[in-house]
Order: sequence, then structure tokens, then C-alpha cells
Amino acid sequence: MHEIASRVLAKDPRAIARALRLVDDRLADCVPVLKDLFPSTGKAFVLGVTGNPGAGKSTLSDRIIQNFRAQGKTVGVIAVDPTSPFSGGAILGDRIRMQRHATDPGVFIRSVATRGHLGGLSRSARDMVRVFDAAGVDLVLVETVGVGQDEIEITRTAHTTLVVMAPGMGDEVQAIKAGIMECADVFAVNKADRDGADSAVRDIELMIALGSESMVAMSKIRGHRTHTAADAHVRVEQRATARWIPPIVKCVALRNEGVAELCKAIDRHHVWGAETEEGRARRRGRLADEVRETLREALIDAASRALGERIEETVRAVDAREVDPYTATEQLIEAFRTAPRG
Amino acid sequence: MHEIASRVLAKDPRAIARALRLVDDRLADCVPVLKDLFPSTGKAFVLGVTGNPGAGKSTLSDRIIQNFRAQGKTVGVIAVDPTSPFSGGAILGDRIRMQRHATDPGVFIRSVATRGHLGGLSRSARDMVRVFDAAGVDLVLVETVGVGQDEIEITRTAHTTLVVMAPGMGDEVQAIKAGIMECADVFAVNKADRDGADSAVRDIELMIALGSESMVAMSKIRGHRTHTAADAHVRVEQRATARWIPPIVKCVALRNEGVAELCKAIDRHHVWGAETEEGRARRRGRLADEVRETLREALIDAASRALGERIEETVRAVDAREVDPYTATEQLIEAFRTAPRG
Repeated sequence: MHEIASRVLAKDPRAIARALRLVDDRLADCVPVLKDLFPSTGKAFVLGVTGNPGAGKSTLSDRIIQNFRAQGKTVGVIAVDPTSPFSGGAILGDRIRMQRHATDPGVFIRSVATRGHLGGLSRSARDMVRVFDAAGVDLVLVETVGVGQDEIEITRTAHTTLVVMAPGMGDEVQAIKAGIMECADVFAVNKADRDGADSAVRDIELMIALGSESMVAMSKIRGHRTHTAADAHVRVEQRATARWIPPIVKCVALRNEGVAELCKAIDRHHVWGAETEEGRARRRGRLADEVRETLREALIDAASRALGERIEETVRAVDAREVDPYTATEQLIEAFRTAPRG
Repeated sequence: MHEIASRVLAKDPRAIARALRLVDDRLADCVPVLKDLFPSTGKAFVLGVTGNPGAGKSTLSDRIIQNFRAQGKTVGVIAVDPTSPFSGGAILGDRIRMQRHATDPGVFIRSVATRGHLGGLSRSARDMVRVFDAAGVDLVLVETVGVGQDEIEITRTAHTTLVVMAPGMGDEVQAIKAGIMECADVFAVNKADRDGADSAVRDIELMIALGSESMVAMSKIRGHRTHTAADAHVRVEQRATARWIPPIVKCVALRNEGVAELCKAIDRHHVWGAETEEGRARRRGRLADEVRETLREALIDAASRALGERIEETVRAVDAREVDPYTATEQLIEAFRTAPRG
């Protein structure tokens, strides 16, 4: 076993930090370490927390962590920040988050630099969850900004996804969250002491009602593009039989109001996911998504190594319009399959 | 030549609509058509328009289109909408956009359903640009909601990316746009008759100043993860020698104020991109990105076809913890490479 892996299993905080860094930076050692850790995973509860900027995600996450800590549970936090696709550095990474827990040895916090390439962020988040999980952490909280495809992918890492909203953030802001809405297992309407909290609850109820109808109908017509027909069928089945209606909990994180009730709602979804047939089917579906996504990333990595400069030569040929990019790609794939192994 | 392709080259509007639909739905015919169209592409000017909801992108796009139409140029519009990752349908797709141009035969408008899988959206957008380009359209305007990785990828399709902002949208909203900021070639501060327009201009100036420093520094440390070291070098070179400073133009789209000046700024960037060494290098870089991204998508498609049920079997084995997902993926890749062709 890799030395870092055995120290992570022994809950050595420095090794945990090291392993998280290996995963985030995708260093060469990360895959052997993850292979060693995998058999010890599957025990942590993974909670995704997402929502628009300004909804109060960090404050609410802070309260949820307090709640879990009060039950003697250990917590790992993965905070995903918006960053540049060019620099690879987290622009908000230096912001000190959740200072309350900075000196609590039962809380590990890791900020993730979002990277400029598709698929990488959710892969990193998922692998970091595994590091925490193998280290025996009880709760892994993954906090993301709730906009865009990346964040939707990341929520798929979680057993339970909490979507945090606040009253009066505007219709257009709500509309953009359409994708996130459908990943939500529990809604929090934070800042519920403000005007418009009840109307926000009604909006969410409406979106839930509309969503479950249209989702079943649409998934019958066409499944996720990367999935097989059989898989699309499984999804429809899941939808048709799942009876989880996302609860909506009003709270005021700043004053710690409604947080206990929110934690209970989260816990109910956790139990549903672990103990009902529908919940377990969903978890298997997530794992299937992961295998496909890992395969996607690993394929391009392997092809890049095997093809080397041929990719650059192809770019030149396409630029010169000697070949179209579609034919060129087919030729590259054939070259990859027949290339010597190494 | 495919019949649809030859009709697109003959500028038949129904064939153009058909080809766009083939691309958006990724139907079987789309690749042969795109292969036939490719040699006739490379002439259109591709303008990306992005920005947060509420900034007034659609109204401003409308004005820009008017401006180009007044010069007798034809316009294709690709409007990318936020949607559900589950349904595959455009939630805002039924909204009638840019009605002014609905009866102008010189303007083609196509709404794109954003799809629930990574990479697909920018690929569709790029291929739809090619359809318009081959059909002899002078300007292709790609409008996206400026949040998230997807949108950043889509802006890479464009020769020139216009980022639309509005005063007083809040610091947090600005922060999330960090990724988009660095793709911007021209900034519009729309609704400039509102309070805070000058302060928005100063904010953007600051972000540009900070950005170019940190970008060069960071890209020296590490390039885009999917790129080779040689490629990272090219990027640093580009940054170091490129002298394009994004202009910031104040305008009020609703009253058509500042739009002519904005169009001139867009045109200056267009000329820079086409006629300077730095601009041409950037365009080659974009093409290189595309070839890699196309390869990524085509690899997973080919592997899914070749492996068939083996992927599902792997999911079951990982779920049972008989194998870790990393080893399982390596085995799948080897199976793909040695699978019979067909």
C-alpha cells in the first residue's frame, strides 16, 4: 500500500491534506493512492450545498457543520470556488472561509481551484470526497456556487443535495437555476425573515410540481446523450417510482433559526437514499455516471500520451483545411487504438 | 456530396434549418454533412455575446444585428438557453427572441437546447457556426448566459467575445464572472444611464489590469491540463506578445446609444484577430482546443459503441467493490483498444 494511503487510513491530518492536494493537482501519485483508499470508502455521508451567490450558502454550511459537530461527528469540507479557466488558480481561494471551524480538529476544510477543463472539477471533487471518506470522516460537505453545468455535475457526487435560495433574488436568477432545481433533494429558503420568503417557497413548490411531470415525459423521449437506451429506461423507472418530494425549509442562518429542522430534513433524505429501493437505485445510477465520466477523462489522457505530436500535426492540417476536423478525429482514434502500449 | 450539404451551400433556408437541427440533435447524418461543409467554412465573422442575466444581452444583440444588417450583411444567431440536464429541452426555448428580425430573410435565428452532458454544448455551437458559415452568412452571433464553464467554452468558438455588464449587479455577481472576464475581447457596460456605470467601468479596468499580470504568471507555472508543455509555452508567448487591451464601451441598448461605437470596437478586434500575428496565433490556439475537444467526445462515443454492455458490468463490479473505478477504467480502455472495429 502507498504510504500516504496508509497514513490517510490512520487519520493522519497531514496525510489527508497531502492526499487532497495530490487529487486536486492531479499529480502522478494520486491514482495509486485512490486505488488503495477505495476499499475503505462508502461510509461517509456526502452533502452537497449549492445556491446562487448571496443566498448565504457559507453561513448556512457553517451552521450545518456546527449541528453535526454537536453530535460528535467529524466533518470534511470541500469548497469549490469560481476561477479562471486560464490561470487554474482559485480567485476566491484566499478568502478565509468558515473561520469558526479553523481550530476545530474535527473539521477539515479544503478549497478547490476550479480548473479550466471539462469534467475535471467534478472528478476532483469526487476523489476528494473519497479521501475524506477513507479517513473516516462522517460528513463530507461539498459547497459549490449553484450555476452552470460544472456545479450540476458536482451535485451528483453528493448523496443529498441542499439548494439554498433567498427571497427576492429576481426571476432571471431563478430561471438560470433550472438545472440545479432538478438536482435538489432539500431546499432551504434562507434569510426567511425578509419579505418574499413565502412567495419563494411557492415558486419552488411550483417548479418541483412542473419538474417531476416534465422530467418523466422528457426522459422517455430521450435519455442522457452519453447513456445507452437501457440506461435511459432505468432512469425513467427511477423517476416513475421514486416518491421523494424535496422538502422546503425556511431558515435564517445568521440567527441559527430553522437550522435544526433543516438538518432533520437532510437526515430524512439521507435515510431514504440509504434504505429505500428507489434511493439505492439512484445511488447506483450516480456510480454508473461516474464510471462513464472517469472513462471519458481517462480515454483522452491515454490518447494524448499515445498520440503525442500527432495531435499537433492534425491541428496544423485542419488549420490548412487539408482535412476536416471530423475525419481527422476518426484517424486519430484509429491511430490511438493501434499505437504501441506504454 | 450529401444532399443537405449541397442545399446549404446554395443558401436554401430550409436546408440551413435542417442542418442546424441535425447538429443540435446530433443525428447520424450530421457528421457527413459537416464534413462536406467544412471546406466552405472560415469566412464568417463569429461574435460571442455573453453576460449575466439582466445585463441586457438580447436587447444589445438585437441592436448589433440591426447595425450589421444596415451594412447589407447577413446574420445567423445561435441562442443558447439554460436548461435542465435531465429533460434535454430548452426551458426558455419557447420564448420568442428578437422578434424584430423574425420576418427579415437576412437573419436566421436558432435556439439551442443545452444538453446535460459536458462538452456537448460547445461542440454543437461550433458545428452550428460552421453550418451558417458554409451557407455564406457574414456574421454569426452566438449568445450565451455568461455563467459557468459551458459558456466559457462556447466563447472559445467566437472570433470576438463581447461581455455585456450592467451597473449595480452586485459584487458577488461580478466575482462569478471571473472566468468570463478573461475571455472578453470587448466589454459593454449597458444601461449606462443608470447610477454606477462609471464605477462598473473602473471595476472592469481593474480586473483587466489584474488579469493580464496573473494570467502570464500562472500559465508559466501550469498550462491547461489537457495540453502539452509545448502548447503551454505557445500560450505564454501569446499572452506575452499580445497587445490587445479589451476596450470598454458604455451604451444604452434600449435607446440605441453607444451601439455604433460598440460595433466599431468589435470590428477593430475582428481586424486584429484576422490581420495580426498575435490574433492569428490565438485563432490557431482555438482550433487546437477544438481538435482536442472533438477527440475527447469522439473517443467516448467510439468506446461506448465498442464496449457495449461491458461498461454496465463494470459499474456493477465497482458498486460491489470488487474493483476500484480507476483500475476498472484502465481495463475498459485496454478492451476498447483491442476490440474489433466496426
